[in-house]
Amino acid sequence: MIRKLAVIGVGLIGGSLARALRKAGAVEQIIGCGRGRENLEKAVELGVIDSYSHDIGEAVRGADMIFLAVPLGAMKEAFAAMKGKLAEDAVITDGGSCKGSVVEDARAVFGGVPARLVPGHPIAGTERNGVEASFAELYENRRVILTPLAETDAQALARVRAMWEACGAEVSTMSVAHHDEVLAATSHLPHMLAFGLVDTLARMKENDEIFRYAAGGFRDFTRIASSNPVMWRDICVANGPALSKMLGAFADEMNELAQIIAAGDGEHLLEVFSRAKAARDRYVDGLQPDQPSE
Amino acid sequence: MIRKLAVIGVGLIGGSLARALRKAGAVEQIIGCGRGRENLEKAVELGVIDSYSHDIGEAVRGADMIFLAVPLGAMKEAFAAMKGKLAEDAVITDGGSCKGSVVEDARAVFGGVPARLVPGHPIAGTERNGVEASFAELYENRRVILTPLAETDAQALARVRAMWEACGAEVSTMSVAHHDEVLAATSHLPHMLAFGLVDTLARMKENDEIFRYAAGGFRDFTRIASSNPVMWRDICVANGPALSKMLGAFADEMNELAQIIAAGDGEHLLEVFSRAKAARDRYVDGLQPDQPSE
Repeated sequence: MIRKLAVIGVGLIGGSLARALRKAGAVEQIIGCGRGRENLEKAVELGVIDSYSHDIGEAVRGADMIFLAVPLGAMKEAFAAMKGKLAEDAVITDGGSCKGSVVEDARAVFGGVPARLVPGHPIAGTERNGVEASFAELYENRRVILTPLAETDAQALARVRAMWEACGAEVSTMSVAHHDEVLAATSHLPHMLAFGLVDTLARMKENDEIFRYAAGGFRDFTRIASSNPVMWRDICVANGPALSKMLGAFADEMNELAQIIAAGDGEHLLEVFSRAKAARDRYVDGLQPDQPSE
Repeated sequence: MIRKLAVIGVGLIGGSLARALRKAGAVEQIIGCGRGRENLEKAVELGVIDSYSHDIGEAVRGADMIFLAVPLGAMKEAFAAMKGKLAEDAVITDGGSCKGSVVEDARAVFGGVPARLVPGHPIAGTERNGVEASFAELYENRRVILTPLAETDAQALARVRAMWEACGAEVSTMSVAHHDEVLAATSHLPHMLAFGLVDTLARMKENDEIFRYAAGGFRDFTRIASSNPVMWRDICVANGPALSKMLGAFADEMNELAQIIAAGDGEHLLEVFSRAKAARDRYVDGLQPDQPSE
């Protein structure tokens, strides 16, 4: 049981955690923290949080669990604001989609990674934002990745794991570096391709006409290009090394494919497309729809 | 009114045209042609066609409208099979998603592009195949592009246009080269990215794990990688010049993006992502779902 949960950033991700823990009877008191008064008052009105503060130091006072659901670019500032204000048994975790930068930010602020910081990432989300988009079932049967370090306290890890399991999520652990590689491949790279494709077409002459002839497959393919640009800027900066490496490798693959196509090598093309279709049909069709990766 | 329609290839595309014209009362008699007896018998049973033949020369006899819905790789053989068997008033059109190769194939077989050949491309489809997947409403409010040449007979063009309008489609015309560029951008390139991404991930070590952490956004993004590999091999070979050029340009863009990310240039990233989001929200959200481009 969590005595007092502080949710820093009460939007879709933070709000859904609060709702899920409340529904599971796994939390006594929830305080929200953020900049926008209107969103926080709405959160109280909806019963997602009990009270709120605009001050992080104030919000974490007496909290035994702190969940950071702020953009990656705001993590460092949030750590700095809670430094020296934490309860002795306070466990900190977060929902950022890159873990290396969060660990680095914590190290810079605290002069070392706190033993009671458990970096985490729920692989869940929708395209909507704000507390009104949050719902208690968001994490049910979704995967949550935790990336404990050598210095992470085993009990803190167990508490964060239990928190996510109370929300119905499936928790696994992996190293920070491995998480960032896996997410670069399955989420960050696809977002770059979608943003890049739409941008390429938007910059072409007669782009109005081009988009007019795009059909439904294009709509699905580019849906993730409608994601929040600020969030994605932060993710790219945070996961720069893994992502730029993967983008470069993908560009090489596309150049290779361009050569195969220019050479009219149908046999080679059939091999690539068949392998891709088999992998896609095998691995991806079992996934549930309407849950864009974060 | 079409007196006798010959549909060469009675699958989703050909079958839906037959159903739509029948529903509109715009055709008297429909003969289907294909290799698979079972599919053709099903088509008769469903009332999509009146009769069938496995022989193209036989099927086009007396037909005043011939619709070729065969893979691009089979167009040349189909033209050769109907050569010398065509009625005097026969108009030929097709549904291939690359027009340059169709025109080339016709020129090679007939020693020149027949005046009564009107190359066409309905921008519609679903992921399903076969006559049982066909339905009369497939082309309603969809775009059909016709690419007449200088030598195309005006009356033949008017008849093909009227045929598609009877199906509820919105018909426009453009040059063969322009069509192939537009489709390379909006359909062929996205398919290459989806096939390429899934193939890249499938070839990574621990690809099982990678796919396991892919969320719903990945599912949407890669849906088109489940398309028919043979059809896409044919399209790539047919539209090789336009597509390989566009792939090369996209690879350059991805390399540029990799450099921006590696340099941590957040301002530049925000500019690209915002421009892409604005274009996507503006142009693409109005499209109807579940209609992958062909």
